[in-house]
Amino acid sequence: MMARVGVIGLGVMGYRVAANLAKAGLLAGVYNRTRARAEDFRRSYPQVEVFATPSDLADRVDYIITVLSDDNAVSAVVGNLLPHLRGKVLIDMSTISPTTSVSLAKEVSNVGGVMFDAPMMGTSVDVEQKRITVLVGGPKDRYAEVEPILSATSGRVVYVGPNGMGLYMKLAGNMIFAIFMNGLAEAINFALRAGLSPDQIIDLFLNISGTRSPSSSLKVPKMLNSDYSVQFALKHMRKDTEIMIREAQKLGVPVPLTSLASNMFRMSEGLGLGDFDVSAIAEFYRKLSQQR
Amino acid sequence: MMARVGVIGLGVMGYRVAANLAKAGLLAGVYNRTRARAEDFRRSYPQVEVFATPSDLADRVDYIITVLSDDNAVSAVVGNLLPHLRGKVLIDMSTISPTTSVSLAKEVSNVGGVMFDAPMMGTSVDVEQKRITVLVGGPKDRYAEVEPILSATSGRVVYVGPNGMGLYMKLAGNMIFAIFMNGLAEAINFALRAGLSPDQIIDLFLNISGTRSPSSSLKVPKMLNSDYSVQFALKHMRKDTEIMIREAQKLGVPVPLTSLASNMFRMSEGLGLGDFDVSAIAEFYRKLSQQR
Amino acid sequence: MMARVGVIGLGVMGYRVAANLAKAGLLAGVYNRTRARAEDFRRSYPQVEVFATPSDLADRVDYIITVLSDDNAVSAVVGNLLPHLRGKVLIDMSTISPTTSVSLAKEVSNVGGVMFDAPMMGTSVDVEQKRITVLVGGPKDRYAEVEPILSATSGRVVYVGPNGMGLYMKLAGNMIFAIFMNGLAEAINFALRAGLSPDQIIDLFLNISGTRSPSSSLKVPKMLNSDYSVQFALKHMRKDTEIMIREAQKLGVPVPLTSLASNMFRMSEGLGLGDFDVSAIAEFYRKLSQQR
Amino acid sequence: MMARVGVIGLGVMGYRVAANLAKAGLLAGVYNRTRARAEDFRRSYPQVEVFATPSDLADRVDYIITVLSDDNAVSAVVGNLLPHLRGKVLIDMSTISPTTSVSLAKEVSNVGGVMFDAPMMGTSVDVEQKRITVLVGGPKDRYAEVEPILSATSGRVVYVGPNGMGLYMKLAGNMIFAIFMNGLAEAINFALRAGLSPDQIIDLFLNISGTRSPSSSLKVPKMLNSDYSVQFALKHMRKDTEIMIREAQKLGVPVPLTSLASNMFRMSEGLGLGDFDVSAIAEFYRKLSQQR
Repeated sequence: MMARVGVIGLGVMGYRVAANLAKAGLLAGVYNRTRARAEDFRRSYPQVEVFATPSDLADRVDYIITVLSDDNAVSAVVGNLLPHLRGKVLIDMSTISPTTSVSLAKEVSNVGGVMFDAPMMGTSVDVEQKRITVLVGGPKDRYAEVEPILSATSGRVVYVGPNGMGLYMKLAGNMIFAIFMNGLAEAINFALRAGLSPDQIIDLFLNISGTRSPSSSLKVPKMLNSDYSVQFALKHMRKDTEIMIREAQKLGVPVPLTSLASNMFRMSEGLGLGDFDVSAIAEFYRKLSQQR
Repeated sequence: MMARVGVIGLGVMGYRVAANLAKAGLLAGVYNRTRARAEDFRRSYPQVEVFATPSDLADRVDYIITVLSDDNAVSAVVGNLLPHLRGKVLIDMSTISPTTSVSLAKEVSNVGGVMFDAPMMGTSVDVEQKRITVLVGGPKDRYAEVEPILSATSGRVVYVGPNGMGLYMKLAGNMIFAIFMNGLAEAINFALRAGLSPDQIIDLFLNISGTRSPSSSLKVPKMLNSDYSVQFALKHMRKDTEIMIREAQKLGVPVPLTSLASNMFRMSEGLGLGDFDVSAIAEFYRKLSQQR
Repeated sequence: MMARVGVIGLGVMGYRVAANLAKAGLLAGVYNRTRARAEDFRRSYPQVEVFATPSDLADRVDYIITVLSDDNAVSAVVGNLLPHLRGKVLIDMSTISPTTSVSLAKEVSNVGGVMFDAPMMGTSVDVEQKRITVLVGGPKDRYAEVEPILSATSGRVVYVGPNGMGLYMKLAGNMIFAIFMNGLAEAINFALRAGLSPDQIIDLFLNISGTRSPSSSLKVPKMLNSDYSVQFALKHMRKDTEIMIREAQKLGVPVPLTSLASNMFRMSEGLGLGDFDVSAIAEFYRKLSQQR
Repeated sequence: MMARVGVIGLGVMGYRVAANLAKAGLLAGVYNRTRARAEDFRRSYPQVEVFATPSDLADRVDYIITVLSDDNAVSAVVGNLLPHLRGKVLIDMSTISPTTSVSLAKEVSNVGGVMFDAPMMGTSVDVEQKRITVLVGGPKDRYAEVEPILSATSGRVVYVGPNGMGLYMKLAGNMIFAIFMNGLAEAINFALRAGLSPDQIIDLFLNISGTRSPSSSLKVPKMLNSDYSVQFALKHMRKDTEIMIREAQKLGVPVPLTSLASNMFRMSEGLGLGDFDVSAIAEFYRKLSQQR
């Protein structure tokens, strides 16, 4: 018998996750705070039920997937769901603090449920094309159940370890990404002012530099063309760096570059760049260079 | 008729450049401050002359290649060579300040010679395998002459622009590399302390992360295995960041991450890590995390 | 009739606060986790009772003062006290997160009690000499009651605003102090390496510089003499900067220098300097300068 | 017999130095690139000659004081003066790189002259009121001659050591000032956003904080009132930090906070704040905080 899965949260990522699960015949229902978006989803996938509340959804499925924006949203939803989670499996695909996640997992366990953290590494396009990697933290002996569900919406599923470990791996990956974005912006601004042409800079960062990478290919052209259409919003990148910093405080490790990058993102938001793509950090450097 | 080329400076990079030119039949002679190393070179390439002074070499060749350690070394050698440079072409493959290079190029021009900056992007292994990229700045109308010489020791030669532009491109490339090295060290230290295994970290940075790149493949394993055998010394990376910072001051652009990375490298040297590979920045983070 | 006051937490600061209140005839009892220290206190002030638990103390006094080490300690103690706080006034003189404090104040209010945050600005010597400043946040209409109690152990009591505002003022004051300590260490290290004598550096920072201040007089000689005997431990300074950073994240303000200082303190702890005075940040700079 | 002194450079500081010397009866003549300002000076001090070139001035006086804007200006003027400096004493009161100054001192010595670096610690108002401190580097055996001249325009003259040492002491003093200004701006922005009133912030930083200092009294009110009228221009502060950074590179010492402060000043200039007082760094923080 097939697993009955419900998805709570139909944002940019959640919508695509739900769509993949629907196509795989695994999706029973969805819930979204703005109901219109859920109805919209049903128009594409009519076999999927739209629930009025998260609890309604939880009562009708075995596996509840949450794809929400931040610690507060996840804490609020899970807190309300607790009375409905006995015997259920909650898979949180949001990127939140591992500390929060571990604490919620304990509460879920206390009411007889099971929780996994399962953040995604990649972009919304990667979800769409089922190329995204899911990093899973939670009880190993229950992993076999969730693996096929997550596989239906990703290119690769990695079991990392106990609760929180999926998120720690995600944070480590986003840490180098955040620093790399800042570094590219800084180097591009330097190069432009030194007189290199955009074409030469493309050649340098996409062909010549040892740091050439998928992230370079994705973001360097955007930075050079001032094309800040959103793939991953700068303010979400900043939020992630803030989680990293709080976790580093707990772990007792220095994160000076992450801290500086976080402040640069924050300052970029002060200039109104928060809702643009993270590549808009290049715009920040440009605005803050000496006028010529 | 073939160009007669001489190489001044047989360090890690210079030796391999000279070897490539010798194999191509282009090398007439070499000079090295420590003569023993030059004699050693001649044992492998007996047709090549060892000169007693840079001036002797300059008098006998048409194209003089310098591969030296820093601004001071290049300024000193070029200063002494000036009376011997009429009608000659000087190709400086060292990584030095563009400002210094442009100023030397002017002096060389004043005595009737021509100078190019032609720094290399890549490692000593890349030189050996003729896969390195050479970034060239100098008079465009004389570039046709030097291109075949540089091609004999590289995988690709890029004409960037007037004097100094080869170095600016090199600096921009090394800027993102310096920041990336620091970022990897920071993220790896965070990941280890969060409980990820070395294998998981390898998987994350070499397979999953969008920042996976040749630099990741080269350095992440070294960082995880504490294998700090030198490919590119940390103190040389620091020296390069210091040039970037001085040039940024002149250009009027902020370089906060480069500045922080530079200070981290400097502090690593204070702990005795300067002569190790740049990947030893990972050791710095480890030493400076809270004792457990 | 006199207020009956009890003090929970007889650390370096708490002990001195309790002593001042005892001398003023205001102190009814004390509690300390390590009972021996409380007994020791009673030997000096025999009229003061030693309670076995915080709850016993709370039941017998009207005003409960807590002077504890961090958020977790205050949260734990106040959590356990809740059933005993109806009609009582809790004055927390610890330096903790305003967010935590506001949240605790709400819980105290819910059970019919009143809470104030009343952190101290100054050193243990300042408490001893009743020269310390107390910064108070809490309900204005109840401030008149607590003012005379706090006045008995300080030079000045400032009512700042609603709950949390005393702590915010304290954090802002410690922010500039943390940055100043780091800055002094950096400038002293620079000056020593440039060849200035310790006497000249004293003259510069204590007489000539516009930044000459009580903090300079207190810390510059310690930094120059490597006298790191504790006035305020480096690890506590680091803890405070971490609170500032988390609050700044909530407030949406950039704190790049605070963030960097926090990381420098953290790294100093990695070198084993955490239990020394905050002035040991000077030792950190010395260790991390290039060997001569 | 009285020393005959000439002043080259009648900027904000130089004008006031010249005025003090004129009042003391020591000033023979002045030179300024914009002659109108020199003529203006003569209207107030008719006994003082206005020279057409620096060389003319040098030929007619024994002591030449330069008060210029930066390394380039001092290098250019001293370079041109060299043939006129035999037997003369050159006192450079500009704030420039010690490395540049030492190198110029050698050239002056080579032509039979003597040079001192004598930067001032304080503001233009301090010069006016003869309260400024002059920090002197140069040959000790000639110091007795210059001391009375400098005393005529200052509150205190300090002999620091050989050439360059006056400047090193000045830089160390400006280093802590630059960091302190940044720190105040950061803490004030944090405090305002946390809800403290300007009056409370004044109270905190001018009365309560251990870092209360003349610099606090001078700058905190300006920051709070957005009164950025120039006492010391932000762009000049940035220039000074850039000198510190280059010297730190030579000395092999880390200066992470100075580097970050320097980048913050640079970024402030990108927002058009460079010509305002250094206290305008507070405006930078305000602009770069999240919009509310």
